[in-house]
Amino acid sequence: MPDTHPTANGERVLADLNALRALGTYKTGVHKPTFSEPHKQSLEWLVRKLPEAGLTGAIDGIGNILGTGAKPGPKLLAGSHLESQNYAGWLDGPLGVVYALEAARVLNADPSVTGAVEVAAWCDEEGHFGSFLGSRSYVGQVTEAEIDAARNRTSGRSMRDALVDMGLAGRPRFAAQPGRHVGYLEAHIEQGDTLESGKLAIGVVTSIVGIWQYRITFDGEQNHAGTTRMAVRRDAGLALAKFCVAVDERFPAACGPRTVWTTGRITLDPGAPSIIPGGAEMLFQIRDDDPSVIARLEQLLQTMAAETTAKGPCTVTVEKIRTGAPAMMNAGIQDAIEAASKAFAGGRSLRMPSGAGHDAQMLATIMPAGMLFVPSIGGISHHWTENTADVDIVTGAQVFVDACRRILGG
Amino acid sequence: MPDTHPTANGERVLADLNALRALGTYKTGVHKPTFSEPHKQSLEWLVRKLPEAGLTGAIDGIGNILGTGAKPGPKLLAGSHLESQNYAGWLDGPLGVVYALEAARVLNADPSVTGAVEVAAWCDEEGHFGSFLGSRSYVGQVTEAEIDAARNRTSGRSMRDALVDMGLAGRPRFAAQPGRHVGYLEAHIEQGDTLESGKLAIGVVTSIVGIWQYRITFDGEQNHAGTTRMAVRRDAGLALAKFCVAVDERFPAACGPRTVWTTGRITLDPGAPSIIPGGAEMLFQIRDDDPSVIARLEQLLQTMAAETTAKGPCTVTVEKIRTGAPAMMNAGIQDAIEAASKAFAGGRSLRMPSGAGHDAQMLATIMPAGMLFVPSIGGISHHWTENTADVDIVTGAQVFVDACRRILGG
Repeated sequence: MPDTHPTANGERVLADLNALRALGTYKTGVHKPTFSEPHKQSLEWLVRKLPEAGLTGAIDGIGNILGTGAKPGPKLLAGSHLESQNYAGWLDGPLGVVYALEAARVLNADPSVTGAVEVAAWCDEEGHFGSFLGSRSYVGQVTEAEIDAARNRTSGRSMRDALVDMGLAGRPRFAAQPGRHVGYLEAHIEQGDTLESGKLAIGVVTSIVGIWQYRITFDGEQNHAGTTRMAVRRDAGLALAKFCVAVDERFPAACGPRTVWTTGRITLDPGAPSIIPGGAEMLFQIRDDDPSVIARLEQLLQTMAAETTAKGPCTVTVEKIRTGAPAMMNAGIQDAIEAASKAFAGGRSLRMPSGAGHDAQMLATIMPAGMLFVPSIGGISHHWTENTADVDIVTGAQVFVDACRRILGG
Repeated sequence: MPDTHPTANGERVLADLNALRALGTYKTGVHKPTFSEPHKQSLEWLVRKLPEAGLTGAIDGIGNILGTGAKPGPKLLAGSHLESQNYAGWLDGPLGVVYALEAARVLNADPSVTGAVEVAAWCDEEGHFGSFLGSRSYVGQVTEAEIDAARNRTSGRSMRDALVDMGLAGRPRFAAQPGRHVGYLEAHIEQGDTLESGKLAIGVVTSIVGIWQYRITFDGEQNHAGTTRMAVRRDAGLALAKFCVAVDERFPAACGPRTVWTTGRITLDPGAPSIIPGGAEMLFQIRDDDPSVIARLEQLLQTMAAETTAKGPCTVTVEKIRTGAPAMMNAGIQDAIEAASKAFAGGRSLRMPSGAGHDAQMLATIMPAGMLFVPSIGGISHHWTENTADVDIVTGAQVFVDACRRILGG
């Protein structure tokens, strides 16, 4: 009976999301890189808001916020992140934080609800300085040496310098307290078009795919673009282009039904118009929730590299630079989200894997974790035109609050 | 009878080249970008040296050096450039300047030689700030507005700021005086392996190929690399790779015997590992000395772009950003170089086109011009390992001085 339970205030949720969009606005989205001024303002905004939910918030030595309270009973951790990709969307991150804040405001104040929601904002989920630095720090996977080495991928600025400027240098980092939380719940935009094209309101996430990343390097011979005959060239850029096309031709026969792969960056060395590139490099990524598929594709990559090297005129090296094990979402939490969708979204939900990485995959290594998706208009993500209809944002908030209540109720 | 004529001093030539290599040394080459400190020192070095040849040198408002003298009779202009590509070879540029200096030292002091050699060092032949800015300025093709807009392609620094730091801001620019010079002669390393593989000592340049440059742009849709299914992607980077491979497959049937083409730079937008590139761009260059071949290849590029766009999922645009008409070298100067080769190199010379652009192509628009090549070891160019055997450097100097004498003698 939804109307007998406390429920989300849709207008308050939309107002909060728009307040966060006003910090670092870029067109209809935001430009809010980690430790930028608008990111700092967004963190301060959340700390000011947490008392509305009976929570006390603080920022730790890596930029994580944790809002904790004194209400007795089981505690559910909920949250997401506040920074954005460069020149990107307004909901990627803030939606999950504001839903968590709203759930805490609604449920923590209600004496009929046993237990409380505590709120987290994980720093740098978008990877400006590293890979899930905030949530990995909370689960105990980040060393001081990793922070020493971290640099902003756009500006090259060191994370240590950024922490000094943020006033966070030297602060301790929050660490998970074993047994404190019954689980972790995170909401996020889908970032794909599955929900929209199925006219659905809620995605119940079953797993988060692993991300495997490779640096593929081509070595040829740098030479003058005017005086070197075509027949004797060892053009590393052309070798790279041929490799990309071969991946496109050969991966479909070896991949799984939901595998995706992407060449996100290409660099030619030296990259001048009149010089035949002697070196070339591509960043290549594969995502799947089945490690055996990844193993097969990785083997194919190595086979293709060996074939190219044997054939010449350039040599190819495949180096794995990131391994991300897939994370399975907790079955009980999936059931709670589905039940909440029946109550507040007419059952218009779908169980689906997440093709994107999220902080929930880090939390899943130490506690039961779950995720809820809302539709993305046109499936657009990591771009300032990213958006979700207001009605879907409000429905998502209602389902999220009810799912939190159900998880707290066991 | 070579021994009856004044001839080059090989040891002096090698010593001068090594003195210039000591300014901005990088491994066995140099890193001497336009208006860097070692470039400035190299310009000052030349101004100090010119009086040895009876010339007075000065630097103008775009960084050109002109060494002029009072000896009566016909005057031949000779030179090349002193800056290098980034982290590149020691001879590309300095060889031609030192040969010119040597010719002036030998011939201007000799009363039996009628007329004189004047020496030029053209600024920025290597294109750090533009395209042949120095020699184009001398022949009257550079406006103040072009200098206003010029920026260093590596650092982004404006040319105006660099001229201020060099102490050259506000100085007038040298302009060619019609009728002052009977012609222009430039020596250069071959930058290819034709002379070496033919065991030849001298290349007699017949023409300098034109360079046509294109910006080829691919428009797709930027999206998330994890959540966007392969089937719906519009990956601009993949479209670019396919286009490069198609050029490699289709150009050979349409090109001329000496055409070369190069993709020197590739950029994906936004270039992040987890984002499907929504845009991609390649800088593409074609060189030939036959404009009809270029016209045919340009038409093929446009046809391929239209086919790709029609087929989808990305659109392709081909934009011409540079047109370089081929320059024919003067027949009399070619004959003079060949005669000098018979006298000093045992006739081991070959008439050949230049696949690289040189300042001589700019001078050729206002006076008879010629070029002489010496062999490049392994054909290597635009790399710090670029080199020429000492014996070939000395032979080249002797041929150059004798060719200058013959040109002055008509």
